[in-house]
Amino acid sequence: MKALHFDGELRLIRDASVPRREGEALIEVILAGICNTDLEILKGYADFRGTPGHEFVGRVVESADASLVGRRVAGEINIGCGGCALCQAGDARHCATRTVLGIHGRDGAFAEFLSLPSSNLVPIPDSIDDLSAVFIEPLAAACHILDQVHIDSSSKVAVIGDGKLAQLIVLALARTACHLTVIGKHEEKLALARRSGARALLIDQMTEEKFDVVIEASGSRSGLPMALRLVRPQGAIVLKSTHHQTTEIDLSQMVVNEVSITGSRCGRFLPAIELLSSGAIDLHPFISDSFSIEDGLAAFDKAAESSSVKIILQMV
Amino acid sequence: MKALHFDGELRLIRDASVPRREGEALIEVILAGICNTDLEILKGYADFRGTPGHEFVGRVVESADASLVGRRVAGEINIGCGGCALCQAGDARHCATRTVLGIHGRDGAFAEFLSLPSSNLVPIPDSIDDLSAVFIEPLAAACHILDQVHIDSSSKVAVIGDGKLAQLIVLALARTACHLTVIGKHEEKLALARRSGARALLIDQMTEEKFDVVIEASGSRSGLPMALRLVRPQGAIVLKSTHHQTTEIDLSQMVVNEVSITGSRCGRFLPAIELLSSGAIDLHPFISDSFSIEDGLAAFDKAAESSSVKIILQMV
Repeated sequence: MKALHFDGELRLIRDASVPRREGEALIEVILAGICNTDLEILKGYADFRGTPGHEFVGRVVESADASLVGRRVAGEINIGCGGCALCQAGDARHCATRTVLGIHGRDGAFAEFLSLPSSNLVPIPDSIDDLSAVFIEPLAAACHILDQVHIDSSSKVAVIGDGKLAQLIVLALARTACHLTVIGKHEEKLALARRSGARALLIDQMTEEKFDVVIEASGSRSGLPMALRLVRPQGAIVLKSTHHQTTEIDLSQMVVNEVSITGSRCGRFLPAIELLSSGAIDLHPFISDSFSIEDGLAAFDKAAESSSVKIILQMV
Repeated sequence: MKALHFDGELRLIRDASVPRREGEALIEVILAGICNTDLEILKGYADFRGTPGHEFVGRVVESADASLVGRRVAGEINIGCGGCALCQAGDARHCATRTVLGIHGRDGAFAEFLSLPSSNLVPIPDSIDDLSAVFIEPLAAACHILDQVHIDSSSKVAVIGDGKLAQLIVLALARTACHLTVIGKHEEKLALARRSGARALLIDQMTEEKFDVVIEASGSRSGLPMALRLVRPQGAIVLKSTHHQTTEIDLSQMVVNEVSITGSRCGRFLPAIELLSSGAIDLHPFISDSFSIEDGLAAFDKAAESSSVKIILQMV
């Protein structure tokens, strides 16, 4: 099969083996999305080697669960050991020996086929088209913020960043009716955030205004120091960006202002699927371009351009 | 009056003016405790100039509230503007224009007299002796952790540090019956923590064991990186140390493990007074030495020694 492969350099491989893991399902990938984590992997993040890609919509080709075969699915990306206390409680996201699709110990979605346990697969309602379904994984990660910090209609919330994930966070938070401000560097991306109902400002338009909750989704090293400036005393910062760098922060200010910082990664798929099914949001404006897997390297180049929002890879 | 004064160097002044602020009470200081924040102030923390000291027990000499005159009191150290939304809600701890006794914009307790608004003063029950009462402010800061993170009898909690504040945190958490481990560098201080009922380990005795909650109270730059190693996925870190340095951290690990970090400063006095009144705890073992204000510089030298726990200054 065709697959993108990273071994310090990204290449297109035409004769990769179809991944078959014992006891798992085989999925034919329809579309896959390029995420910032994929771009960071190419810079060395997580020391990953193999086929990246973890945002996908596909069709089940083989599964021990006959009801899944032929179904269109998205897939939870964490695969636990099955035996530890966390896995037994039904949440493999923090299993210490987990693999993660296209990120850790397991080939991912930038290929014609991928392998996942059947229990990771979530059938997609017909009302959600392929181009929307490929956003289920990152939209779930955006919705997850609401599982972690309290946001309601009285909350003043700032999102730092105007890229792929930031745009989804705006959509996920809209249903709380909070006062939402997006802070970014790209006027055309800020315009997208405004279309979703947020106030949107360039960084140099920021004043001394303070926010109850600040969500760092810029993927940049300067994001957390900015969040610490924007958050009110006793406010909350949510960190969504993973990047291959350390950050220097003034802890005393955190202590004096009693700020909390919470890391936030993957979310439950159900709230994302419900949000998409409701028809309340339209994801098509966030697709900057799509490429066939044959042009996968060009797709990555395009995804790295600052003007791009979501870049899609078409597998079939 | 006699007072310690810091202007880049700590000195004893014998003819300092008695501090009288309009509308405030005048308190004769009986005892004052030296805190790590005071030691950091001498290194440049908070750019403070004046008389440091914020842990005290004193007697009210003058107050518009006649019922307070002659009473033995402790004092809340944050003095708000009185007009902002936070002050109006009754909590000046985060008022943007607050002064803080002996830390920011206001002379403190290492003097024969200090000035505070009467509303900041808390009368001390007779059952609490002076040497215990001087711990009310830092004990309140220790108890404050329980206002911020959930800890119960099933929680595995680690305290990093074996100094003054760490010892009080052990006492404050004991009533939760949590599984408490203190991690420090000084065998004799760890022995004190064991007397308070905690498990206590030298840093090099630590294994790969993980904790639900990790409280950083070492005052050291290496404390947070250690806390990030010790905390379980989705666990909580509480930062108590203020120091005059920045710290470099790997944010990706925070995001991947969805850890939260919460800054923690001053607490409500009532829980601390109740804990002391109950007779459940004995603070005398934590007093390493006491000095008259005449020997204030020697007291600071002693407080900076790694073997010291609490050093007390006697004003009268």
